[in-house]
Amino acid sequence: MIETPRNHHLTAALTYAKNNQAAFLEHLKTFTAIASVSTDPAARPAMQQAAEWVADYLKKLGVPCVEIMPTPGHPIVYAEMLTAGTNVPTVLIYGHYDVQPAEPLELWISPAFEGTVRGEHIYGRGVTDMKGQIMSTFHAVEAILSAGELPVNIKFIIEGEEEIGSPSLPGFLKEHAQLLACDLALNPDTGTLAPDLPTITYALRGMAYFEIRLHGPDHDLHSGVFGGAVHNPGQAICELIAGMHDAQGRVTLPGYYDRVISLTEEEREELSRIPLDDSHFLAETGAPALWGEAGFTPTERIGARPTLEVNGLLSGFTGEGSKTVLPAWAMAKISMRLVPDQDPEEVHQQLLAYLQANVPPTIRWEVKKMSGGPASLSRRDSAGVKALAKAMESVWGKRPLFKREGGSVPVVNYFREYLGVDSVNTGFAMPGDNMHSPNEKMHLPTWYNAIDTYVHFLYNLVEAS
Amino acid sequence: MIETPRNHHLTAALTYAKNNQAAFLEHLKTFTAIASVSTDPAARPAMQQAAEWVADYLKKLGVPCVEIMPTPGHPIVYAEMLTAGTNVPTVLIYGHYDVQPAEPLELWISPAFEGTVRGEHIYGRGVTDMKGQIMSTFHAVEAILSAGELPVNIKFIIEGEEEIGSPSLPGFLKEHAQLLACDLALNPDTGTLAPDLPTITYALRGMAYFEIRLHGPDHDLHSGVFGGAVHNPGQAICELIAGMHDAQGRVTLPGYYDRVISLTEEEREELSRIPLDDSHFLAETGAPALWGEAGFTPTERIGARPTLEVNGLLSGFTGEGSKTVLPAWAMAKISMRLVPDQDPEEVHQQLLAYLQANVPPTIRWEVKKMSGGPASLSRRDSAGVKALAKAMESVWGKRPLFKREGGSVPVVNYFREYLGVDSVNTGFAMPGDNMHSPNEKMHLPTWYNAIDTYVHFLYNLVEAS
Repeated sequence: MIETPRNHHLTAALTYAKNNQAAFLEHLKTFTAIASVSTDPAARPAMQQAAEWVADYLKKLGVPCVEIMPTPGHPIVYAEMLTAGTNVPTVLIYGHYDVQPAEPLELWISPAFEGTVRGEHIYGRGVTDMKGQIMSTFHAVEAILSAGELPVNIKFIIEGEEEIGSPSLPGFLKEHAQLLACDLALNPDTGTLAPDLPTITYALRGMAYFEIRLHGPDHDLHSGVFGGAVHNPGQAICELIAGMHDAQGRVTLPGYYDRVISLTEEEREELSRIPLDDSHFLAETGAPALWGEAGFTPTERIGARPTLEVNGLLSGFTGEGSKTVLPAWAMAKISMRLVPDQDPEEVHQQLLAYLQANVPPTIRWEVKKMSGGPASLSRRDSAGVKALAKAMESVWGKRPLFKREGGSVPVVNYFREYLGVDSVNTGFAMPGDNMHSPNEKMHLPTWYNAIDTYVHFLYNLVEAS
Repeated sequence: MIETPRNHHLTAALTYAKNNQAAFLEHLKTFTAIASVSTDPAARPAMQQAAEWVADYLKKLGVPCVEIMPTPGHPIVYAEMLTAGTNVPTVLIYGHYDVQPAEPLELWISPAFEGTVRGEHIYGRGVTDMKGQIMSTFHAVEAILSAGELPVNIKFIIEGEEEIGSPSLPGFLKEHAQLLACDLALNPDTGTLAPDLPTITYALRGMAYFEIRLHGPDHDLHSGVFGGAVHNPGQAICELIAGMHDAQGRVTLPGYYDRVISLTEEEREELSRIPLDDSHFLAETGAPALWGEAGFTPTERIGARPTLEVNGLLSGFTGEGSKTVLPAWAMAKISMRLVPDQDPEEVHQQLLAYLQANVPPTIRWEVKKMSGGPASLSRRDSAGVKALAKAMESVWGKRPLFKREGGSVPVVNYFREYLGVDSVNTGFAMPGDNMHSPNEKMHLPTWYNAIDTYVHFLYNLVEAS
């Protein structure tokens, strides 16, 4: 490394981070001990306490402006340190201080709300989702400040409602768009595949969720007295759902693939570096065989291709034993995972068009739109992604994996919609870390690497911009 | 009518029946007042009381041998009057003294367990299903005995468990096959279409009922994380069920129609006399349009063609709202209504063969056989059917309708299996009589006609035999 003032600061920051790992761990334990379960009304004081703890921590770091801002639900901690001047970017760092409930408590080996180190892991509710992830960004800032000035401007938005669907966040972003103005966002709430596989998530799938109800006869009929002369809604819903995929596993809604951005050979090559083969998916799911759209790998099917799933089916008699009913109605919950540039409302129209074309005159139908949001796709050559990739190469000595995530992260869409910025999505939670389950844990060597990564990232942003 | 001793007796019997309608009605009220609800453990004394009331009534008629015989459940009343000699047939008359529960009681206009006459109807739980039906056979016997001897030998079997599925009946028939030996049975537990449309039911459909379970992943999956790479069992069950019918509404199980006895032109002609057109079925079911196997009328589809119905469907999340689950399993309850000469066990094998051929390797499956029984078909030119048809012509002045019933009457199968006899199926319960519902009723003018019909029937049996 060439000795420049910038490199001198970087080296000093990394040294500070290395020397303070034990202290960082103690802070994480303190944060973990606050049972900030957002869904639990009885935890309201703990929620307030967690917000204050976050705010106090940032103040102690020397962040000049820190506020606990009310929302209709749990408060949002906002902070900013805009000391780097107008020639460098401003990055908005996202986090959530709330956690999932810890029940069933009896399955925890050590107390849920106590950070306990065993081997290379720290155990406790929220350590990886995402108190540890938040703290790694705080510690990176602390390390940099110990060595000098921040190379870029920083804003923090740490909410308290992610585990209950972030109901207050869109309104907050809309109201405070000016305050939150930034050049890019960092969202450390996605994951990493393994300790030696640093990962950047550059695409998330969107969603469109519907409930379909079919009505046949206006009351349940005796299947002997009327069976054979009336279209059974249970059968009809099966016929309609069966028709929603063709023999290649493709969704048949009219126009469904029109806006789907195809994978390039370069991107397929990049995705093929993700070391998750068929045996991985078989082991993870327990399915007897894999399935999916012809011509794509499981990784591509999950990340880069849109799907249509039956999430729920209900008709007639479903208790023990037998009842000879010809049911009056049938219900299906159907959702589509969308990829860029599909539009949830267009998909809604495509579903309606499919039903209009395929529901026979023997059946009445209705569709309720439940929820939906678009997919997101970040340019892998954006300044933010390049800065993070380079940071990971510096820390791990290897290029990160570039991953497309099959699920949705609504926050990323909200930032796009209300702030007009893309998010750089990363995070060091790993598949076996028991997020949302008992014995949630975080891998400490990876956590320390995460801190170093964010130190590099913030410096790299200046060059990349 | 030519004046013969037989005709003299017949005329006297019919006169007696006519003159005693008021007394018959009072007896029916007394019988109705016994709340013999077989499914209610608290009604056990009432069940015993009903059995004793039936036995006493038959004794008072002069039936020489009457017994209340125990079963593992409610007792069976057996009676016989074998005074007509060995040159004439013996007819076994079936009935059940138990009734459905009367709840919800607040919907009854007059008390459920009180026979109340309003207009041309008597109201009360069980009046038409089937205390009135039983009593019409008793009154016919009484009328004949008032005029002379019985022209044929008679046995009665009046059970107390029909409304709970006749669990004790098969064992009883098997054990007492000798005692119950007869030439034919009369089952007055089926119905009539309208007061002016006397009806003989000459065929009943059988049934084969199954529960199918499909298993995909070994636990519920997140539809974002795995959707697209795993076959959704909810989708798979829809694909399998959709494939069970072709575009003509025919069932696709291999060999399903091989044993189905085709309708002859003569039989189709006979069935076409049943005045139930499309508008009737539309009004009865409330379905927006009728459906069914191409090339058959609704009456034929229901009575003479086998079907396959979805009785229940369950998979994934079926509560309010949305949950992005890719369910681990899906369940369907499927039943087939069978026609002669389909065999329930063969149909079971056909279902297994269909699943073996069509379930993909992405899914594990299991099938549970729930219940089943063959269809039955009586020859319309049998002695018993001819005797009844002629009786109806005498009373109504017109040929009865010959109807194939879409439902099953297990008793008819049991009599076939354990006693080796066909049943003549009739009865004067009508579609609007609220069987199993509040305000059950029976049409009194039709009931009086029923008594006359059975008088004729018993005399006709001698000639027909």
